[in-house]
Amino acid sequence: MLTNIDLDRLIADTEHEMLGVIARAEDERTRELYSMVRYHMGLDSDAPRGKRMRPLIGLLAYQSIAGEHMRALPGAAAVEMGHNFSLVHDDIEDGGSERRHRPALWTVSGVAQAINTGDTLFTLSRMALYRLSEEGFDDARVLRLMRLYDETCLALCEGQFMDIWTSEHDEWMSVDYYFDMIGRKTASLIAGSAEAGAVLATDDESVIGAYRRFGWALGLAFQLNDDLLGIWGDEATTGKETSDIATRKKTLPLIYALAQATGADGRRLQAILAQSQTEATAAEIAEVLDILDRIGAEAYTRDRARAYRDEALSEIASVGVVDDVSVERLGDVVRAAISA
Amino acid sequence: MLTNIDLDRLIADTEHEMLGVIARAEDERTRELYSMVRYHMGLDSDAPRGKRMRPLIGLLAYQSIAGEHMRALPGAAAVEMGHNFSLVHDDIEDGGSERRHRPALWTVSGVAQAINTGDTLFTLSRMALYRLSEEGFDDARVLRLMRLYDETCLALCEGQFMDIWTSEHDEWMSVDYYFDMIGRKTASLIAGSAEAGAVLATDDESVIGAYRRFGWALGLAFQLNDDLLGIWGDEATTGKETSDIATRKKTLPLIYALAQATGADGRRLQAILAQSQTEATAAEIAEVLDILDRIGAEAYTRDRARAYRDEALSEIASVGVVDDVSVERLGDVVRAAISA
Repeated sequence: MLTNIDLDRLIADTEHEMLGVIARAEDERTRELYSMVRYHMGLDSDAPRGKRMRPLIGLLAYQSIAGEHMRALPGAAAVEMGHNFSLVHDDIEDGGSERRHRPALWTVSGVAQAINTGDTLFTLSRMALYRLSEEGFDDARVLRLMRLYDETCLALCEGQFMDIWTSEHDEWMSVDYYFDMIGRKTASLIAGSAEAGAVLATDDESVIGAYRRFGWALGLAFQLNDDLLGIWGDEATTGKETSDIATRKKTLPLIYALAQATGADGRRLQAILAQSQTEATAAEIAEVLDILDRIGAEAYTRDRARAYRDEALSEIASVGVVDDVSVERLGDVVRAAISA
Repeated sequence: MLTNIDLDRLIADTEHEMLGVIARAEDERTRELYSMVRYHMGLDSDAPRGKRMRPLIGLLAYQSIAGEHMRALPGAAAVEMGHNFSLVHDDIEDGGSERRHRPALWTVSGVAQAINTGDTLFTLSRMALYRLSEEGFDDARVLRLMRLYDETCLALCEGQFMDIWTSEHDEWMSVDYYFDMIGRKTASLIAGSAEAGAVLATDDESVIGAYRRFGWALGLAFQLNDDLLGIWGDEATTGKETSDIATRKKTLPLIYALAQATGADGRRLQAILAQSQTEATAAEIAEVLDILDRIGAEAYTRDRARAYRDEALSEIASVGVVDDVSVERLGDVVRAAISA
C-alpha cells in the first residue's frame, strides 16, 4: 500500500526533475535569473513549497494505469512549473505580497524581473516536456500532451482575465459566470494534470475521459473549499487571515447571496459589497454573515463542494486500472484537499 | 520577380493567419481579452503595425527553398505573436508608454490585464504552431519546430534578464557581455525565424545552418543599427526622440567608449553616464559626443554593423536554393533594416 512516504517520494522525484530542467538552462550569466526561479518554487533550500497537488495527481493517474511513475516525471514537472509561472504573475497582478509564508518574488526582485522570471518559468515548463521523448514516448503522444498543455494554459489566462475583468465590472458576475471562471482558472489545470497522466499511460479514451472529469470536478470542489475557508475557515473567523468579506472578494457564497437576497437584505448586501478601496468593518462583516446565514449560502456552497468531490471520487472508482492502490491514494489526495 | 506587393501579400497572409488563431480562441466572455491582443498587435483596424520583419524572414526563407509560402504561415504567425508577447511585457518592465505611435497596452488596460494579455499572446503563439499538422507536416518536424521555438523564447527571457540586471548592476557590462545579451534578446528570434523557415522546407542541415547564421548575423546588425540611430540618427540628433545618451542607455558605442576611454575622458564619461534618475543635460550630451568622436565609437559600431550585415548576405548568397528571387528579396529586407 502507498504511504505518505510514497507521496513524499513522488514529490522529491518531481522536484529533482524540475531542478534538472533549470540546471540544463543555467549558465554563468543567468545564475541570478534561475535563482529567482528556484526561490519562487521553494527549490532553493528547505523553504516551504506548495503541496505539489497537480504533479501528484498527474503521477498517481499515470501510475494507476502504468504501474510506475518515473516515465511521467517530465509531465509532472511541466504542470508544477506552469502552475508556478501563473502564481508569479498573479502575485503582481493582485498585489499579493506573500506566497507560502515568504515575500512574493516581485517584492524581492522588483516587478520587471518578476514579470520576466514568470515568463522564464512558463518557457521552462514547456522545455520540461521534451524529456518525454527521452523516456521513449513517441512524437504523436508528446505532441498531444503539448497541445493539451497549451490549451490548458490558454484557459488559465482566460480565467485570470475574467477574474480581473469582474473586479472592475461586477455587473458581469453571476453564479454561472463564476463557475465558468473557476473552471478555466483552477479546474482546467487540475483536469489537465489528471488527463495528461492518463494520456501518457493509455490509448483508452474512456479512461482518459474519466480522469479528465475526475480532475475537473476535483478542481471545482477545491476552489469551493477555498471559498468556504475564506469566510468560515478558522483563519478567517479568528482574524488570522483577512476574511473574503472584508476584501469584498466575490466568491460563490457572496455571489449566490447577491443573486438570492431580496428586500432589505439585498439592498444591504449590495451596499456593503460595493467596490471600495477600504476593507469592510467588523460590524459590516457580522451583518453580511447574518444575511449569508438567512439565505443558506454556506450550506449551498458546501453542498456543491461535496457534490463535486463525490463526483470526482466516483469518476475513478470504477475505471478499471491496474494499480488500485494509486486510485485509493488519489482519493486520499482529494479528501485531504477538500476539508470543508 | 518579387515586388513590394508580394511582400505586402506575405504580411497580409500572416495577419490573416494570426486573426484566425485569435478567432478560434475567442468567445463571448473573453471578447475584451482578445480585443486587447488585437489592439497591441495592430490588428484592430488600420492601426500602425510593426514591420513584421520576423515573419517576412521566415516566409522568404521557406519560399526560397519550397517555392511557395502558404504552408509556412503557422510558423510566421507564431514568431510574430511571440515577438509581440515580449513587447507587451517589455513595455511594462521598462515603463515604455508608447508602442508604434499608440499608447502602450498597459497604459490603456492597466498593468494586471497587460501582464495577463502578454501571457495569453505567448500561449496563442504556440497554439498557432499546431496548424502545421493541418498543413501536412509530420509530427517529428512539428516537434522540432516547437523545440526551436521554445529554446528561442528561453534565450529571449535570458537576454531580457541580462538587460534588466545590468541596468542595476552596471559593473557586469562589457563589450563581450553586450554581444551575448543582444544575441539572446534580439538575434535569437530573428535567427529562429530564418531557421524555422528552412526546417519546414528541407532536411538539408547545411542549408538550415546557413539560414540560422544568416538570421543571427542580421539580428546583431539590426541591433547595432538601432544603437547607432539612438545616438546619431536624425530623430535623436534633432531631439524628436530622446538620445540614448540622455537616458544613459548602455548600447555598444557607449560600452565601447567606456572600455576604451582613459585619463580625463574616461573619468568624465564615467561621471556623466553614472546611474541617475534624471536625464543628461544638452551640455553633457555634447561632451559625451565629443569623447565618442575622439575614441571612434561611431566608426567602430558602424563597422561591426556592416560586417554583420555583409556576413548575413554572404551566408545566403551561395546556399543554392530553388527560388533565387526570394533570396534576393531577403537581401532587400536586410538592406532596408540596416540603414545606418
